[in-house]
Amino acid sequence: MKSVKEAQDTIIKFSKKGASESIAFEDCLNRMLAEGVFADRDAPPFDRVAMDGIAIQSEQLLKRQRFFIEDIQAAGQEQKKLKNPENCLEVMTGAVLPYNTDCVIPYERITIDNGIAALDSTAHKSFQNIHKKGVDAKKGDQLLPAGTWVHPGVKGVLATTGLTMVKVVKSPTIMICSTGDELVPIENKPLPHQIRRSNVYMLQAALKDLNIEAETTHLPDDKPKLKTAIKELLRDYDVLLFSGAVSKGKYDFLPVVFQELGVQIHIHGVKQKPGKPFLFGSQGEKFVFGFPGNPTSTLVCFHAYFKLWLKQHWGIKDILTFGHLDKDIVFNKPVTNHLLVMTSTEDGKLLAKPIANSGSGDWVHLALADAFLSLPSEQSEFKKGEIFPITYLHKNSF
Amino acid sequence: MKSVKEAQDTIIKFSKKGASESIAFEDCLNRMLAEGVFADRDAPPFDRVAMDGIAIQSEQLLKRQRFFIEDIQAAGQEQKKLKNPENCLEVMTGAVLPYNTDCVIPYERITIDNGIAALDSTAHKSFQNIHKKGVDAKKGDQLLPAGTWVHPGVKGVLATTGLTMVKVVKSPTIMICSTGDELVPIENKPLPHQIRRSNVYMLQAALKDLNIEAETTHLPDDKPKLKTAIKELLRDYDVLLFSGAVSKGKYDFLPVVFQELGVQIHIHGVKQKPGKPFLFGSQGEKFVFGFPGNPTSTLVCFHAYFKLWLKQHWGIKDILTFGHLDKDIVFNKPVTNHLLVMTSTEDGKLLAKPIANSGSGDWVHLALADAFLSLPSEQSEFKKGEIFPITYLHKNSF
Repeated sequence: MKSVKEAQDTIIKFSKKGASESIAFEDCLNRMLAEGVFADRDAPPFDRVAMDGIAIQSEQLLKRQRFFIEDIQAAGQEQKKLKNPENCLEVMTGAVLPYNTDCVIPYERITIDNGIAALDSTAHKSFQNIHKKGVDAKKGDQLLPAGTWVHPGVKGVLATTGLTMVKVVKSPTIMICSTGDELVPIENKPLPHQIRRSNVYMLQAALKDLNIEAETTHLPDDKPKLKTAIKELLRDYDVLLFSGAVSKGKYDFLPVVFQELGVQIHIHGVKQKPGKPFLFGSQGEKFVFGFPGNPTSTLVCFHAYFKLWLKQHWGIKDILTFGHLDKDIVFNKPVTNHLLVMTSTEDGKLLAKPIANSGSGDWVHLALADAFLSLPSEQSEFKKGEIFPITYLHKNSF
Repeated sequence: MKSVKEAQDTIIKFSKKGASESIAFEDCLNRMLAEGVFADRDAPPFDRVAMDGIAIQSEQLLKRQRFFIEDIQAAGQEQKKLKNPENCLEVMTGAVLPYNTDCVIPYERITIDNGIAALDSTAHKSFQNIHKKGVDAKKGDQLLPAGTWVHPGVKGVLATTGLTMVKVVKSPTIMICSTGDELVPIENKPLPHQIRRSNVYMLQAALKDLNIEAETTHLPDDKPKLKTAIKELLRDYDVLLFSGAVSKGKYDFLPVVFQELGVQIHIHGVKQKPGKPFLFGSQGEKFVFGFPGNPTSTLVCFHAYFKLWLKQHWGIKDILTFGHLDKDIVFNKPVTNHLLVMTSTEDGKLLAKPIANSGSGDWVHLALADAFLSLPSEQSEFKKGEIFPITYLHKNSF
């Protein structure tokens, strides 16, 4: 049995950066850029008017406070020219700064009467309210390095560079497999000894939150049928996620089926609670994750191990985040305790309040958690206020 | 001009909870439950075996340490019965606890030889490793109240209750409108005085992160055309988001067009930087948000105001989160300073490091920010380590 640290190191060792593909700009949100993006023009591409008002020649401020309005320079118009340096042009935000001008004075600082703009004062400076050509980036500059995650702000930058196709890291193709003859489809009324399938929907949702669309299937607790099905799935998908059938039960056929199919098992059993029977293996470029069948074990192992694998695939650096335990806890077993918590912040501190629950088979209370703290195996008393690594189960955008 | 607080109070005053609709279970991730969800059976629905091993009658532990294995109780099988109380049944995780047994001893604590299970000790207790019927919830209990956000764990609970249709708060229908004659489609090569449309894609992505699919359109800087187009859009959509045309420019026709169309303008101008010209109005049940056209202004106002409106629509309580400013800042204007930052955590503290940028028209540096701190107008010196309200621009699930 591996420690959590050894298991995570094993995942990292057998993972590698995914291949890349070109996709349409429309589809690139929440994907990882596989190559740098460069400016196709200066940013801004011209001396850009940054306030609505008038544009003048600043040296005229020594001589006059009233300017005849020659014309208007609107956004989207070709650059105009101030003909007489004693005059001004009205200018709109986003417009090109007119030729022969170097100072923009906003409407708030002038009064216009009879085609004459009168300034409130002559205390204005050259280049004020002008967003200078190239100040943010020069043509050819790298705007976004490879390894940038495409969030809305990044998508805005991509649009501005005119990229209609974007090179990103390929998403793995994933099949989520439930096992366990006690499971029935959700639309069925279960018999007294049956329960409805739920882990596969939970995993499918967790993957969707990571912008991966995965399929689900159900496999019977029958060794020959499992073997035939998994052989085909290994051919058709990059990653298989299993819920159940990896523990010590008589019908937990997955480990032996994997061995017979030539899947190398790198991890089987981790010193942790929940999730002790967790399994991880590979066959060439294909990967299998065997999550124990209890809902909490499944979700915790997904986030502790599959997400770590996915970070390597996408090339995301794994950064530990720490949260403050919000309650005294005693846990005497010499294993890592992944403790379900509900997070909040207080005065800029990240708090993690443990969720009362009855164990890894308790799906009812799983709905209340948004993260887990990983309490180390060497310690058995954990005090309120101590900090421990935290892993999020989901984040909404509020 | 309103303060940020007055503007936010105005948004809250004119917002209300959205109507509800029934949608398929498959589509309910990241939606808001509009009604409570109740257990259709006990959870667990039976005394559930929680470890692979054997089930015995605990009172036999006083008399014997070796048990003949009568049969196997697998998960998904009807409940079996231990015929002879001196014997045991092998039992698998997820199975119904066999009739006549009250104690599960895991394989790790026994050795099996010749059909006889020998215990490591008699120090086992009744009801150990049994997940008791109804301990997590009783049939009829409310599992999830109305106002629960459907994250993956909640989706698992919904699956278990067998809900194939789920009642959720309706998503608003939204059109995102760019204005500004300087804008060209992203696939075009802009002329020297033009730039590509980008704000609409940024807003569309920000809405998608909130699980709302919105459309985009472009409107010309032409008052009659604007009026005709907006009249139709107000008929067809719940919410219109505008980027640009709300400031003091000659071609900023939106405020007057709204007035002519009977849109009540509740906010026009907020004491803040960026985003001073922000506009918010309503016409019956329809809402318009006018974001200033600069990329940073647009994104900041979307998160400061539209998201606040959406929280009311969904019935999400607005909870302020605070982050630690990670650098000394001086800002002398008597307005709220929405400062772009990159967040991180250090020892359980939420840090917010300001992003260097050249102003609200700088889209290049917007890509580096993941949040903004709102520095209050009454203060002008802000010290490293002080805490201020933080608003996230996006959150990825790592």
